[in-house]
Amino acid sequence: MTTNPAPTAPAAPAPAPLPASLAAPSAVGHAVTVHQVARPRGLPTAGDFAFVEHAVPAPEPGTALVENVYLSVDPYMREAMEEGGWQLGVPLEGRSVGRVVRSRTAGLRPGDLVFHRRAWRTHALVTAEEARVLPSLPGIPLRAWLGVLGGTGLTAYVGLRRVARLAPGETLFVDAAAGGVGTAVGQFARLMGAGRVLGSTGSAAKAAHLVRDLGFDAAFDYHDGPFAEQVAALAPDGIDVGFENVGGEQLEGLIAAMRPSGRIAWCGSVAQYNDPARPPAAPRNLYDVVHKSLRLEGFLVRDHRDAQRELEEFAVPHLRSGRMVPDDTVTEGIGSVVDAFVGVLRGSSTGKMIVQVGDPEEK
Amino acid sequence: MTTNPAPTAPAAPAPAPLPASLAAPSAVGHAVTVHQVARPRGLPTAGDFAFVEHAVPAPEPGTALVENVYLSVDPYMREAMEEGGWQLGVPLEGRSVGRVVRSRTAGLRPGDLVFHRRAWRTHALVTAEEARVLPSLPGIPLRAWLGVLGGTGLTAYVGLRRVARLAPGETLFVDAAAGGVGTAVGQFARLMGAGRVLGSTGSAAKAAHLVRDLGFDAAFDYHDGPFAEQVAALAPDGIDVGFENVGGEQLEGLIAAMRPSGRIAWCGSVAQYNDPARPPAAPRNLYDVVHKSLRLEGFLVRDHRDAQRELEEFAVPHLRSGRMVPDDTVTEGIGSVVDAFVGVLRGSSTGKMIVQVGDPEEK
Repeated sequence: MTTNPAPTAPAAPAPAPLPASLAAPSAVGHAVTVHQVARPRGLPTAGDFAFVEHAVPAPEPGTALVENVYLSVDPYMREAMEEGGWQLGVPLEGRSVGRVVRSRTAGLRPGDLVFHRRAWRTHALVTAEEARVLPSLPGIPLRAWLGVLGGTGLTAYVGLRRVARLAPGETLFVDAAAGGVGTAVGQFARLMGAGRVLGSTGSAAKAAHLVRDLGFDAAFDYHDGPFAEQVAALAPDGIDVGFENVGGEQLEGLIAAMRPSGRIAWCGSVAQYNDPARPPAAPRNLYDVVHKSLRLEGFLVRDHRDAQRELEEFAVPHLRSGRMVPDDTVTEGIGSVVDAFVGVLRGSSTGKMIVQVGDPEEK
Repeated sequence: MTTNPAPTAPAAPAPAPLPASLAAPSAVGHAVTVHQVARPRGLPTAGDFAFVEHAVPAPEPGTALVENVYLSVDPYMREAMEEGGWQLGVPLEGRSVGRVVRSRTAGLRPGDLVFHRRAWRTHALVTAEEARVLPSLPGIPLRAWLGVLGGTGLTAYVGLRRVARLAPGETLFVDAAAGGVGTAVGQFARLMGAGRVLGSTGSAAKAAHLVRDLGFDAAFDYHDGPFAEQVAALAPDGIDVGFENVGGEQLEGLIAAMRPSGRIAWCGSVAQYNDPARPPAAPRNLYDVVHKSLRLEGFLVRDHRDAQRELEEFAVPHLRSGRMVPDDTVTEGIGSVVDAFVGVLRGSSTGKMIVQVGDPEEK
């Protein structure tokens, strides 16, 4: 785990009016909720967000107050910032884990550690249906529930098991390999018996990290030459399973390197998130999907939440034994959330990016 | 069935030397074998082929002489004409059915009707391993073994059953719908319980034929407007299964109309066969494969020959009952083979294109 110093919180421009529950007169203390206030072009900037300070909300009947401990920032959120995605001037959504501190619902008790989807804020009101009480598993750090045991790990697990159906001995390639999903894909694939685990990333240092710390057989920096040539050099015998996070030229290079009857699990397209109006050129060799009998299959992790328990049964023993090392970067304080998010999009960190806004240990 | 008049045989430019078996002194009578003699640009022309006249070859030990009755010409052959495909100046290959007339192998007897891969010729020498003796099925015309019961039908069957896994009630769309594969796809899909069967083709007459004669619910002429708009108008509720024969803009329109979790069985790309150096623009909306959790899967029928018996068990009862009508265009005489082939590429016929070079009834 790498810990970055907390950046200073950017000034909050023109906050929108608070929802009633956040401004409730019964609230005490101090809380912060982040809103999107503008549609970015290219990489988001601090000015696209507002940090809204308000009193800690009081739970209404049927809800509980959660002090968030960790917030998840993820590449897919860049898409949500576009027209038709997140509304402007309202609290944002995202995965979070936190601790119930007050409850007016029978389903949640003070002290419960919960996973829910009201991130981008220090305090959240949730119903019992909106929160999943996390099991207490010795040796599993709380932030793992946003990483290898959360949506990130579920994406990797489902892509390998359900979509690509990786078989022992096969050669796997993943792009954006040093990201949250990529590091989980590489480690999961190794533990599932992949023959070779290969990846691409955005710097020589990250490529070295993948091989040295995470068990990849080889990795390259995509800046070092044409993508297709570098994949081919890494996998001269071809690739059985591709895990595609980027799209564009990288998907083209992957298709070129695929073995006959190979499968590509496609879960994202970072190359396109920052400029949705101009999608990257689609692969010129797409017809090789026919020539090589390839399967190119897109998936959304939200359609596979029923695999959560299976993920836990697979990953928890490996986490406890140390065979799998959660790779994450943690920034500190709600004020760091925008920088952490932009960092994910720039690829300036490795592993799952997590923002710590509370104390993981009970006081 | 539509019968076209036999075009005159084009002159044979500079025939290559005959293989020994064709020029054997023991041969009697008169035979014709077609060679490719030039690499075409765009649509092939008569000058790309040579008609080589020679004596009827005599079977050597272990082979049998087959008088071909029907030859198959198929879109995929256009690809084989490129560098790296068929050799120039040698007999061409392709699916054929014929009758054994002399045999020096225990596996084949005079009078046997056989399927084999030495087409583009009037007479073929085959081993027992190279020929499949066809069962005698009352009510099934011999040419069906090159159409709905041959590679064409197998392509349709495998694409629907194994690749796309069409389920009853689903909406199916096929492009190049009036071709050999397309007409089989539409009829098979209906018999498999598809909810709606939709297609596109290259003329209003062919669109009308699909609806009037082959049980399609609706079809359009792709010249009538932007492909995506026409698909969307035909299938306002979206498409569950796409059967893709064309690629390029038509694949893009299909992706746009797909329902979430839809499947596209991709078996060919006619749009690209005539100009392989400049593949059609890949679909600009390819990332919708992720957004809509689509599966785009290429396949080659040669990997699925084990499904032949399953195809026959499915299709033969429907052919006998008349619920399925084999749709084909038959041209007459070996001299018509090039025009028949170019006709397939131009879409100037409907259904499976077959060249008759012998008598289907035993003399």
